[in-house]
Amino acid sequence: MKNRVNTLKSAFEKEKLDGYIVADETNILYFTGFLGAVRLLVPKEGENILYVYRLNYEEAKQTAKNCRVEPVKRGESANQKVADQIKSLKLKQVGFDAIDASAYMKLAKALKGVKLKAQGKLVWELRRVKDETELKYMRKAAELTSEGMKTALETIKLGLREYEVAAEIEYAMRRKGSGGVAFDTIVASGPRSAFPHGGCTDRTIRRGDLVVVDIGAKHQHYRADLTRTVTVGKPSSRQVKIHKVVREAQNRAFQTVKAGVKACDVDAVARKFIEEKGYGEYFVHGLGHGVGLDIHEPPGLNPETKDKLKVGNVVTVEPGIYITDFGGIRIEDTVLVGKSGAERLTEVSYVLEV
Amino acid sequence: MKNRVNTLKSAFEKEKLDGYIVADETNILYFTGFLGAVRLLVPKEGENILYVYRLNYEEAKQTAKNCRVEPVKRGESANQKVADQIKSLKLKQVGFDAIDASAYMKLAKALKGVKLKAQGKLVWELRRVKDETELKYMRKAAELTSEGMKTALETIKLGLREYEVAAEIEYAMRRKGSGGVAFDTIVASGPRSAFPHGGCTDRTIRRGDLVVVDIGAKHQHYRADLTRTVTVGKPSSRQVKIHKVVREAQNRAFQTVKAGVKACDVDAVARKFIEEKGYGEYFVHGLGHGVGLDIHEPPGLNPETKDKLKVGNVVTVEPGIYITDFGGIRIEDTVLVGKSGAERLTEVSYVLEV
Repeated sequence: MKNRVNTLKSAFEKEKLDGYIVADETNILYFTGFLGAVRLLVPKEGENILYVYRLNYEEAKQTAKNCRVEPVKRGESANQKVADQIKSLKLKQVGFDAIDASAYMKLAKALKGVKLKAQGKLVWELRRVKDETELKYMRKAAELTSEGMKTALETIKLGLREYEVAAEIEYAMRRKGSGGVAFDTIVASGPRSAFPHGGCTDRTIRRGDLVVVDIGAKHQHYRADLTRTVTVGKPSSRQVKIHKVVREAQNRAFQTVKAGVKACDVDAVARKFIEEKGYGEYFVHGLGHGVGLDIHEPPGLNPETKDKLKVGNVVTVEPGIYITDFGGIRIEDTVLVGKSGAERLTEVSYVLEV
Repeated sequence: MKNRVNTLKSAFEKEKLDGYIVADETNILYFTGFLGAVRLLVPKEGENILYVYRLNYEEAKQTAKNCRVEPVKRGESANQKVADQIKSLKLKQVGFDAIDASAYMKLAKALKGVKLKAQGKLVWELRRVKDETELKYMRKAAELTSEGMKTALETIKLGLREYEVAAEIEYAMRRKGSGGVAFDTIVASGPRSAFPHGGCTDRTIRRGDLVVVDIGAKHQHYRADLTRTVTVGKPSSRQVKIHKVVREAQNRAFQTVKAGVKACDVDAVARKFIEEKGYGEYFVHGLGHGVGLDIHEPPGLNPETKDKLKVGNVVTVEPGIYITDFGGIRIEDTVLVGKSGAERLTEVSYVLEV
């Protein structure tokens, strides 16, 4: 974890920075192992300072790494404390990751003569390449997620409500040690399956429904992401046909994932196949996204991205076809980018009929 | 729900605004009933416009209220579209709620001659007073949360791991219809109970441990918040003593909650009582906070706030005493502010020994 801050600092020269304000809680977690701080100030030289409200101060003192912990007391402003420290260290060019506009204006006012630069990408360049510790955690998160999906496939039946299915999935993942859900569980059935982010309601699963199940477990704050789509009982020929298209698109795209490949080219493999089969207009989102401490991270796999895949990227591959009233079919795995190919971290049957 | 946007618009004149950009996803949910949009533009006159990526476009079209839904296509920028619309409507003074600094700078650049004003408080003034529909949802969220705590009290025993307790609580709430958890479940045992936001680990619950259980269910996106602290088996005399102090502080503060009272005065009732008993330095956070669509909302109940309580505010009352190595005790209910007193929405035993 120490390497991470040092790698950030080593980018300062090229970016003409002599300090960096980390404001995103998850970025702070990445650098210090501590979740629940307000700011982390990383100066070019000297110790990093973690600003923590008194509420979390004792926990931070005991667990935060690579920094000195500075309490933010009642009535004090974390932004003001950071500004004072920047002035006292005489920093002149300070990058930051993601700050709310109001906080930015306060900082800018308190730091006249200091150049503040939006440099969120600098941290993403680090976070998008997972180190060995991170990969260990992500494998575990993916394994727990696959277990959750196995429970889903065993649980789904006629007459159950969507949230009842979600209850069984989440319970199974938690019992095996998941640190909560990676995002709000999706169990979207019938016409609702045509909504890619359809969530989970009290709708009852009926014969003939498509059911999109999109779930994630967490381990040590790292997340995984997995989708399967099923029917209860015999699927219609149209459901079978579209399921085959999505499955084939997913596999073709997966086969092209490796270091050095443009992320937009991987998207194009799935997109062109789906277009050729006549469903292009129904694939309404990008092919995938990075995953890690956040559920949506760079690199994006979509037509617009300029990113190239690197060894250690963890991304989703998740084509989908969504037709209003008919329903939607999405198939997704979380995969690890390697030198000469990719590895599926999530592993569970692609069966359509349960 | 229509009233909510109209109430926002009716504040424009006083605030010298002729438009408002809603960027916070939960604020957009509050005004439109739809979760998953990028921006909502509310001009002084004419229709409100909801900007939605194509991914969620069909769902928004079918479910979003009080607005026209405008798709943001691949390659388009939502900020640019909002800026173009503001220019076309010739809006000159535009408020916004909470925008990332980078997005703010892009908007400011695209909108030279337009005054952009950080006016997040305007929406909070509305959201902090719950209407009848909201209160119905919050009562249900609180009821589900109380059920979860009953499960906790029945489940906790020696030898169980913290996450195993969390699994049973979350499963019970989900089975009864909760829309997921309102925040990451806290089951913090032994020395970890001294961390107010201690989360939940694989630590095994031992004899003599204090166990802080802080949980919340959701209903229709509305949240509740509830904490109890227990020991497994006979508590020590020190545990009993401190539990009594926290319980009494919570009840005294609760008795003073009503419309018109300063929120800092409610905090002071609990704080002074805890100080008199000699534990002042261990009460390391504010007494409470508003709850609703977000888990932490205005009004805050703490020594610094200037807020007065109003009929329809829903707030937590949650004093705590945290002593490093010894452990922590917190007791919390979610309560509704009324004209002449408050009502506990969460209801479950305050027993110390389970």
